[in-house]
Amino acid sequence: MKEVKLWAVGSISRDDIRTPLEYKQNVLGGSLPYSTIAASFFQKTGAVGLVGTDFSVSFSRRWASFKLDLSGVKKAEGKTFHWACEYEDNMISRKTLATDLGVFANFKPELPEAYRDVKFVLLGNIDPKLQLSVLDQARDVEFVTVDTMNYWIQNAKEDLRKVIKRATMLTVNDEEARLLTGQRNLLEAAAELIKMGPQYVLIKKGEHGALLFTQDDIFIVPAYPVRRLVDPTGAGDSYAGAFMGYLSRATDTKEKTVRTALLHASAVASFCVEEFSIDRFTRLSLPDIKSRVSDLKHMIKV
Amino acid sequence: MKEVKLWAVGSISRDDIRTPLEYKQNVLGGSLPYSTIAASFFQKTGAVGLVGTDFSVSFSRRWASFKLDLSGVKKAEGKTFHWACEYEDNMISRKTLATDLGVFANFKPELPEAYRDVKFVLLGNIDPKLQLSVLDQARDVEFVTVDTMNYWIQNAKEDLRKVIKRATMLTVNDEEARLLTGQRNLLEAAAELIKMGPQYVLIKKGEHGALLFTQDDIFIVPAYPVRRLVDPTGAGDSYAGAFMGYLSRATDTKEKTVRTALLHASAVASFCVEEFSIDRFTRLSLPDIKSRVSDLKHMIKV
Repeated sequence: MKEVKLWAVGSISRDDIRTPLEYKQNVLGGSLPYSTIAASFFQKTGAVGLVGTDFSVSFSRRWASFKLDLSGVKKAEGKTFHWACEYEDNMISRKTLATDLGVFANFKPELPEAYRDVKFVLLGNIDPKLQLSVLDQARDVEFVTVDTMNYWIQNAKEDLRKVIKRATMLTVNDEEARLLTGQRNLLEAAAELIKMGPQYVLIKKGEHGALLFTQDDIFIVPAYPVRRLVDPTGAGDSYAGAFMGYLSRATDTKEKTVRTALLHASAVASFCVEEFSIDRFTRLSLPDIKSRVSDLKHMIKV
Repeated sequence: MKEVKLWAVGSISRDDIRTPLEYKQNVLGGSLPYSTIAASFFQKTGAVGLVGTDFSVSFSRRWASFKLDLSGVKKAEGKTFHWACEYEDNMISRKTLATDLGVFANFKPELPEAYRDVKFVLLGNIDPKLQLSVLDQARDVEFVTVDTMNYWIQNAKEDLRKVIKRATMLTVNDEEARLLTGQRNLLEAAAELIKMGPQYVLIKKGEHGALLFTQDDIFIVPAYPVRRLVDPTGAGDSYAGAFMGYLSRATDTKEKTVRTALLHASAVASFCVEEFSIDRFTRLSLPDIKSRVSDLKHMIKV
């Protein structure tokens, strides 16, 4: 079995998802399954997370069927994190109906010894304190991508700034970028975020793609136009995971490579939303992904 | 004086614009000044429109200072179209506070004899009946771009479909595309619009750029990231005008050329919003535009 070259930390949940067309109960969710499975198309990926004793064997089996190492996923007495949400007609805005943290309330991520020298790290959207504690257990990171959300910006800004300082890339959406900086203009918001430490700042705009900022440069990241939108849940996590998966396999982490990695991320995210949960990934292959990347390149060519 | 190679029809108005930061009264507005001035950086452009006897000499002088032919702009007894609007904090959503059509209520566009064999035509957002009547006066068009808005989709759908049938390119925003077709998914909406006649369908998404559709292809049109957003009014009209200006100067109207024309449109629109009314255009040069096009090409390169 090949070595783990990338690890991610994040939430693992049991989701109930209602869209205008369908209602699915008890599906595998959370940022970690999405991100690690998306990454697994490119790289042997390690997952660091926590489930409850109710976590089903079928979930474990499905997750483990990808090119992953799940030795960092611990089990604790109690219930797995549960989340319920409902999407509005536009399939973008959503309302959280229930959040039961379960065992996740006492999550103290422990990095497996085998991951301590891994160079690529994806810190999914969890309490910045936990992001810091798990990052502190790593010895020799090269590229750390940090995701977060408005809750932490509003409630744990100081710790969040410590994590951002150590990030190579920060990913936020446009609203979060404005909230973090107080700047309405995205270019000014990005410039402030870059000053906080990261070499790359990625501002995500959902179906409209993203903007990648470095100190001197902007890359307008195209979204792959989606024909069949079934469930948007996990698109952002799949995006981040695929990005890190591709990058950890590349020969360098220069901007040109990062740009190509982001096209791969767009392609993988476009598959994610075609079915509920991680279902579409179970029938996905690297050539499928490459084919959409090639389409996408054609769609931005002048 | 060089011949007119492109003409546009549209509204000419006296605007009062309120943004969260500033309030400007009595500035030159309407789709026609924006579109023709934007086009004039590339091509000698003719304007077909109507003003009232109150249309100020200073407006006429400013407009005429560009590479334009204004012989198709008639004057009628009465007041010039007046429009007042207020932008919300996001500088995207806006509320119309007043619409006084004035002489524009009886606008019957007449195409100057000298424009009848002109091959490039931009039909700005006016009553589809008028778009048809002025198009009927042209003899030998090659590329007709049609713009419209939700009002006509809701109130003059049949006439609008006749115009769309004769369009080479239809430009609508995402909401209008959905309204026109009843399709929520933009790819499906675009496919239906293409079936209505146009070779090109451009779905505009404001700050997020646009999507260009042909029967078999998609081009993801990047928006030039704007650092200084002062007044978004006229951005869409400037975009359409610059597009047609560039295209009418090019050697063909193939998709590759259309793509390049759209980058020029994005660049010109990004200048438009930096000041109120057409103010920024008075200090703009073709090299300024080319410089942003070159930046934009770098921002989408992989």
